Amino acid sequence: MRAPAHVATRRLGIADMGDLARGCAFLGSGGGGDPHSSLVELGALMGRDGHVELLDVGSLADDALVAPCGWIGAPTVSDEKLPSGEEGLLGLRRLEAILGRRADAIIPIEIGGSNGLAAILLALRAGLPVADCDGMARAFPESQMVIFNVRGLKACPAVLTDDKGTCLVIDAADNVSEERIARATSVALGGSCHLVEYPLSGLQVKSNALHGTISDALAIGRSIRLARERHGDPFAALFEALRASRQFSRAGVVFDGKIVDIQRETRGGFSVGRALVEAFGGQRRLEIEFRNENLVARIDGEVRAMVPDLITVVDRETADTIVTERLKYGQRVKVIGASAPQALQQPEALAILGPQAFGLPFPYRDVAELNGWT
Amino acid sequence: MRAPAHVATRRLGIADMGDLARGCAFLGSGGGGDPHSSLVELGALMGRDGHVELLDVGSLADDALVAPCGWIGAPTVSDEKLPSGEEGLLGLRRLEAILGRRADAIIPIEIGGSNGLAAILLALRAGLPVADCDGMARAFPESQMVIFNVRGLKACPAVLTDDKGTCLVIDAADNVSEERIARATSVALGGSCHLVEYPLSGLQVKSNALHGTISDALAIGRSIRLARERHGDPFAALFEALRASRQFSRAGVVFDGKIVDIQRETRGGFSVGRALVEAFGGQRRLEIEFRNENLVARIDGEVRAMVPDLITVVDRETADTIVTERLKYGQRVKVIGASAPQALQQPEALAILGPQAFGLPFPYRDVAELNGWT
Repeated sequence: MRAPAHVATRRLGIADMGDLARGCAFLGSGGGGDPHSSLVELGALMGRDGHVELLDVGSLADDALVAPCGWIGAPTVSDEKLPSGEEGLLGLRRLEAILGRRADAIIPIEIGGSNGLAAILLALRAGLPVADCDGMARAFPESQMVIFNVRGLKACPAVLTDDKGTCLVIDAADNVSEERIARATSVALGGSCHLVEYPLSGLQVKSNALHGTISDALAIGRSIRLARERHGDPFAALFEALRASRQFSRAGVVFDGKIVDIQRETRGGFSVGRALVEAFGGQRRLEIEFRNENLVARIDGEVRAMVPDLITVVDRETADTIVTERLKYGQRVKVIGASAPQALQQPEALAILGPQAFGLPFPYRDVAELNGWT
Repeated sequence: MRAPAHVATRRLGIADMGDLARGCAFLGSGGGGDPHSSLVELGALMGRDGHVELLDVGSLADDALVAPCGWIGAPTVSDEKLPSGEEGLLGLRRLEAILGRRADAIIPIEIGGSNGLAAILLALRAGLPVADCDGMARAFPESQMVIFNVRGLKACPAVLTDDKGTCLVIDAADNVSEERIARATSVALGGSCHLVEYPLSGLQVKSNALHGTISDALAIGRSIRLARERHGDPFAALFEALRASRQFSRAGVVFDGKIVDIQRETRGGFSVGRALVEAFGGQRRLEIEFRNENLVARIDGEVRAMVPDLITVVDRETADTIVTERLKYGQRVKVIGASAPQALQQPEALAILGPQAFGLPFPYRDVAELNGWT
């Protein structure tokens, strides 16, 4: 008997989902949406015995059709405007109809936040495996901020769907126009829509995706949980998991303190604002600027971390991530930084998703370098 | 030999286009876009010998596929952002691919302004006839303000295209969502996009469209021109043409004066504002409120004309229409009112396109009644 084209390397069940959600939240750099409601949805859909197959990227056939998926909108909206559950499959089936073939695997367009789980949900509903990778090893606010765009792959045909059954097939002139159309439509339809975009071949996934990020998220989430269960240090466990990961290595605590101010508004389809963290018993202050994701962190005006490095605010006791829409006055937090994967540190990537792509007036510098971590 | 399914009742050539443009501008109630640039485009495309076949609606086969088309956006934008010329055919071909058959005829979704000519342009490019009708016998600012929506027909699948080759297939949950998506996208893409929407059968067109409106526009434009050529009264000619038309009968001069103030801005994908006209040698003032189209006219605060009746500002010497984006201080104008066709005066139509659908705090009253015309 021949081996199947896709060799499932691992089965993920409901017992893994809490760890995955915790890890995805951390990798979201504050964005991608709180995974909580997706976790509830997964519980209902998966039950005790359901599972999804997690494939090594290397086991994808070169000519496989891989469908990246995720939600577009402001997390402040998606947190309250719950999905119908039909959005993903509606988009996937339409993409398949356009391309004249069935998809072979799903991947998260972004691993960060609830979008990591959105791919698991769609894979479950479609009866397809998930390949162990994503398009950015984090979350980014705009659709074109993805390694597939950096590498010149096309976002379209993309299919946007909503909870009312709306289905929009987008053939944009370029990937930035695809973002503009999807963003404007998501705002017009209430602020949160599902996207199936950047349809890829197995070969394109193998050559371009950020590999192993679902495993990385799982390991991060599990390490934190196990450390807590064993009354150990969840931060030591987090950093150990990052060191052992495929995509991350250098990470550390950028700041430790209490949130003393938070400004946040939903504007143009994004959750935009800033948070101020004050050191305990000291005068030092760290300010974080965010647009869905945390973009830059400054201590007393000095830049200490910037996009595309991870800047994640976590509870200083549990190490659980506090996404931007959950930041509140009085929370005691640590601000964690982690150097972006090499693929995102290249000039062609930084042009699309580095600090200057967000209008910040300085070039990228690695968080490890800025904080003197060795 | 059998008669062809479509019996062309008339051939329209370049000599007709000036008249058609003049008539479409009048029927636009100030909106639909200045037909000037479409007229230039028609001249280039049609040449001296080109023509398009104008069909009586009655000659459409019941099972014909009829494609209504037009532009969405603010006329202040479309006046400057010129089309590539490919938009219409790109949208039509995509619609045909979705429906699995070729279209048999084109109709303007709205006869008013440049959108009356947009259908002629697409018909020419596609080598198809135009059926003598439209969806509103005027122009309206929003896509769902059309008789086909009043009658419960579906806008989708609709195809939106732009000058960069963008192609968006819209399957919205309802016709208002289709407008929202198309509007938001048109703003995101620069403010002016082409739509092929409300794909209809020949039977649906026969039962629902406003018949004869292309002929009406032609007759209006020709009457005004001939009166001027013969040094006659273009206003008498205009009213005579309206009386003889299929869709209009009662019309008259609501006001005569000089424009003394104009406010206009492009907001949310619309050209929004108001114009003030002062009577010659008198203190009376008429104020027009517009959103792409002229919506309401008040003389010294008293409502004297309202949507869906035509409210068209014309040059007081030539009777040529001045569309809202061309209104300027100092223009000497007459404000013409014409009662809307019966189909638009029904309660189910007024609910969708009457004054209260625009947030005006009063029910519809006919302009002829308001001005005591018999």
